[in-house]
Amino acid sequence: MNVQTLLYWVGIAAVAVNALAGVLDSRHKRMDLIGALMVGTATALGGGTVRDLLLDRPVFWVQDQTYLLAASLTGLVSFFIVRAFALQARLLLIPDAIGLALFSILGTQVALQSHAPWLVASLMGVTTGVVGGILRDILCNDVPSILLKGELYATAAWLGAISLIAMQAAGASSVLASSLAMALVLVVRLMAVRYHITLPAFGKDGCA
Amino acid sequence: MNVQTLLYWVGIAAVAVNALAGVLDSRHKRMDLIGALMVGTATALGGGTVRDLLLDRPVFWVQDQTYLLAASLTGLVSFFIVRAFALQARLLLIPDAIGLALFSILGTQVALQSHAPWLVASLMGVTTGVVGGILRDILCNDVPSILLKGELYATAAWLGAISLIAMQAAGASSVLASSLAMALVLVVRLMAVRYHITLPAFGKDGCA
Amino acid sequence: MNVQTLLYWVGIAAVAVNALAGVLDSRHKRMDLIGALMVGTATALGGGTVRDLLLDRPVFWVQDQTYLLAASLTGLVSFFIVRAFALQARLLLIPDAIGLALFSILGTQVALQSHAPWLVASLMGVTTGVVGGILRDILCNDVPSILLKGELYATAAWLGAISLIAMQAAGASSVLASSLAMALVLVVRLMAVRYHITLPAFGKDGCA
Repeated sequence: MNVQTLLYWVGIAAVAVNALAGVLDSRHKRMDLIGALMVGTATALGGGTVRDLLLDRPVFWVQDQTYLLAASLTGLVSFFIVRAFALQARLLLIPDAIGLALFSILGTQVALQSHAPWLVASLMGVTTGVVGGILRDILCNDVPSILLKGELYATAAWLGAISLIAMQAAGASSVLASSLAMALVLVVRLMAVRYHITLPAFGKDGCA
Repeated sequence: MNVQTLLYWVGIAAVAVNALAGVLDSRHKRMDLIGALMVGTATALGGGTVRDLLLDRPVFWVQDQTYLLAASLTGLVSFFIVRAFALQARLLLIPDAIGLALFSILGTQVALQSHAPWLVASLMGVTTGVVGGILRDILCNDVPSILLKGELYATAAWLGAISLIAMQAAGASSVLASSLAMALVLVVRLMAVRYHITLPAFGKDGCA
Repeated sequence: MNVQTLLYWVGIAAVAVNALAGVLDSRHKRMDLIGALMVGTATALGGGTVRDLLLDRPVFWVQDQTYLLAASLTGLVSFFIVRAFALQARLLLIPDAIGLALFSILGTQVALQSHAPWLVASLMGVTTGVVGGILRDILCNDVPSILLKGELYATAAWLGAISLIAMQAAGASSVLASSLAMALVLVVRLMAVRYHITLPAFGKDGCA
């Protein structure tokens, strides 16, 4: 199995993890099976979809429906598992961080291949990594959690994306730079959770 | 009048019904005339718009502004009717079910013509049928009602879409398959309302 | 400096004002630095993005990242200013009205150049002017303020857009028509604020 094939199947797995995360969130809102499926699918595919629309590329899951199959089958199974067991979102911490690393770095690569300028490419990486979760929270009528004060998430994605771009500009090979950048996203995210590292935020007194 | 022309005008009528439904919903939020118009228009045109963007086709109402005219004129008239009379959403049950049948089957046909794979095509049918209502609820800051436990709605659209695809794969003509599939959506939706048929859902105790 | 160059930099300035407005709004929700940045950027670039997607044009800030730089740097600076000082949204009234005038008239021009029909072109003007603010309110989990009863905002944008189209159809030069239409948007908006001019709206008793 070569690197391309490996990345493809890791990508499918990351889509599945995100679908599970979406279904998990929708349990707070009395959603039914198809509602939970739609939230799970939007969570799993939303980031890459928005990236592809902005870059004027064919939407990845419209071309290859394996992604949609993975998202909907995982969503289906997740619904019944989540209904039967009291799963905690915390369980998903590490799979979710791996998904974030993969999505954000692959998203940045896709944007660079589409000749997006560097700052745009780094934003496309963040978009691929976090917009699915934003869509999930909008569909559940919550303020998107990744916009609120919390352990570095979009920040980890952006640091990875920007360091990928810097390494490739400095002449590093695509495989090396991608691997290091994914590791960086993963380490920053997990360290931030472990040591409660947060960015400056608006204070509680500013609450509506 | 041939079938094509008939479908066109039924489509325009379905857009108008959806615009009325959007305005009806916006009355709960103190929206003004232009706010209600925008919610009505987004409800009426949102599903087909998202489908066209995902399939990388020209957006249907940008090409032919009859749809936009129908949505905004209906929205305008609806605003004053809704303000004067205490209309109940229940009145729209049958027109709305007809619109759902039409939108979801036409949306699936459009996706098949764009050579979308079968699962993607069925999702494009559901998208065309339900995304307008999801946008309406997001603009009104509600959890999208079609995601919550309720009488089969997105499910009816999906059953119609998937049976259309199966019938056409089995060699049925496009006109026959579309007619039967629309009838299926309509029957499933109305039976579900009549007999309170629902999907399994997350229970009340899971509420946030 | 010619007119084209002047408009370009006024456009960049309008993007910056919108980014500040987005950050200002996000302070009510305990967002952190990157959350506020993302809300500010979505507010600043959202309207033109949706317009470009609907018209099937390349997204303006993906082509030229000066817009994204302006939005994110302003967002960054705004975050610390907003955190330190109790800025009032009212301070932004006049810059915001100038931005609305500019965005809506430029958006209409872009749509006309893409050969959109007149009603669609006027809606694209309104979209460019107001969708950023709608996205901001959705991300902050509020009902979009411009849809609610208030001093003419989307209405001012639409009146400007439609009068631009009428003037150009009557043979006025693009520069003259655009200047008059921008002035109209500005005057209608500021007069509406000064004299509390509002559209008919759904009453308080209809509230959810």
